[in-house]
Amino acid sequence: MIYQTEKNNLNNSVMAEQKKLSIISFSGDFDKLTAVFTLATGASAIGYEVNIFFTFWGLDAIKIKQGRSLVGRGFLPKLFAFFMGGLKSAPVSRLNFGGISPGIFRHMMRKNNVATLEELVDAAKVLNVNFYACEMAMHILGLEKSDFIPEVKDVLGVPSFLKIADGGQTLFI
Amino acid sequence: MIYQTEKNNLNNSVMAEQKKLSIISFSGDFDKLTAVFTLATGASAIGYEVNIFFTFWGLDAIKIKQGRSLVGRGFLPKLFAFFMGGLKSAPVSRLNFGGISPGIFRHMMRKNNVATLEELVDAAKVLNVNFYACEMAMHILGLEKSDFIPEVKDVLGVPSFLKIADGGQTLFI
Amino acid sequence: MIYQTEKNNLNNSVMAEQKKLSIISFSGDFDKLTAVFTLATGASAIGYEVNIFFTFWGLDAIKIKQGRSLVGRGFLPKLFAFFMGGLKSAPVSRLNFGGISPGIFRHMMRKNNVATLEELVDAAKVLNVNFYACEMAMHILGLEKSDFIPEVKDVLGVPSFLKIADGGQTLFI
Repeated sequence: MIYQTEKNNLNNSVMAEQKKLSIISFSGDFDKLTAVFTLATGASAIGYEVNIFFTFWGLDAIKIKQGRSLVGRGFLPKLFAFFMGGLKSAPVSRLNFGGISPGIFRHMMRKNNVATLEELVDAAKVLNVNFYACEMAMHILGLEKSDFIPEVKDVLGVPSFLKIADGGQTLFI
Repeated sequence: MIYQTEKNNLNNSVMAEQKKLSIISFSGDFDKLTAVFTLATGASAIGYEVNIFFTFWGLDAIKIKQGRSLVGRGFLPKLFAFFMGGLKSAPVSRLNFGGISPGIFRHMMRKNNVATLEELVDAAKVLNVNFYACEMAMHILGLEKSDFIPEVKDVLGVPSFLKIADGGQTLFI
Repeated sequence: MIYQTEKNNLNNSVMAEQKKLSIISFSGDFDKLTAVFTLATGASAIGYEVNIFFTFWGLDAIKIKQGRSLVGRGFLPKLFAFFMGGLKSAPVSRLNFGGISPGIFRHMMRKNNVATLEELVDAAKVLNVNFYACEMAMHILGLEKSDFIPEVKDVLGVPSFLKIADGGQTLFI
């Protein structure tokens, strides 16, 4: 009898386990960030735990100062920050047409009643998607936690991220 | 005795489960699409269930009208369709050399007896790889199910795709 | 009693199983290769089995002859090898500024005491990260196993790689 109970507990704990999606958001491209936040909000809406680990160009999406700002300690980090330019000036990974494509996409998204990137980011916040920043990339780019929006839960290295992502699906975008 | 039987059943069901590979095919680049279809056919050949979820630029690979066509509802979707241009004019993600690289790759693939991209797509169809199209990207690009090859099984949102991909490996390419 | 023992064995074997991270290293970009080796060394440091499957542009990272060499059988493979140019001339995927960005990144990495790409590759070797080369991409690019560093354990097709990666996380970078 005791075995039966234990097995039921085991089954219950396995079946009740929350599904998990973790995304390494590496790219700063408009279309890829749209993919990150579409997957994140879609998964969160059906009850997944969702973790986004922003690294390299992806860090641009969670900076407080959007637009062409000089965020970062040192001359070179500032230079990169200026050219990265944040969500509002993120280029498209292909057919960027000298920078007019993100605007065209925004227009097409609005016209076709699809959530824009900014709306998706807001939705992710409301849905309690977990935002994390990559420690190493912050070192390279001269960024600190205070440069990021308050929704960023923590600064993590690879080992901590792997622990958080363990047992779920992980995507590199 | 009953426990023994139940456990055997449990073990059998776990061991007999078909392995699964799901690919989010986001890129429209020649080399990345080659990776998508090489992985898909390779996994299918050893008995995996394989699902490809075409989104954004990746949708280009499953359009009926290949070449520089004006598929899509509205002016801007048509414009993008023209520049995307389908499988036969997909650029290489790096060292595209103004568009001659895909031809060079095709030549090198044929010369070295490696399946070309078109042959890999055909193989994926024969191997019953499941093709799905992303609903949201279709809205943005003004595409409808009738614009795609008949092998496209369904149009899905993120939640439905996550359910299909659940329990297997998922790659974003 | 026998069930109890069996269940304990089952639990132990599940708990003792080594975690696994497998990376398909497709890109030859400096920043993406840095991500590959940061993830690989980070996972290995906490006891993961780590497998890297180098394919397409990623093969550039494991060639013996670094720099702009003419490795490969045939004229076209040699041409691509020349332009790929190995780890030391890998471009950055974005804001490459005509090739000066990797140098800037190297400078920023050294200044901020972050391991450089070359140091990460060396660390991966020391940590026994498993290096594999993709058979099909080698055929296309006219490369042979003898063109690669001795740490490359084997040349694999997709099915063999899937078997190695089975049961762990897999990322496409």
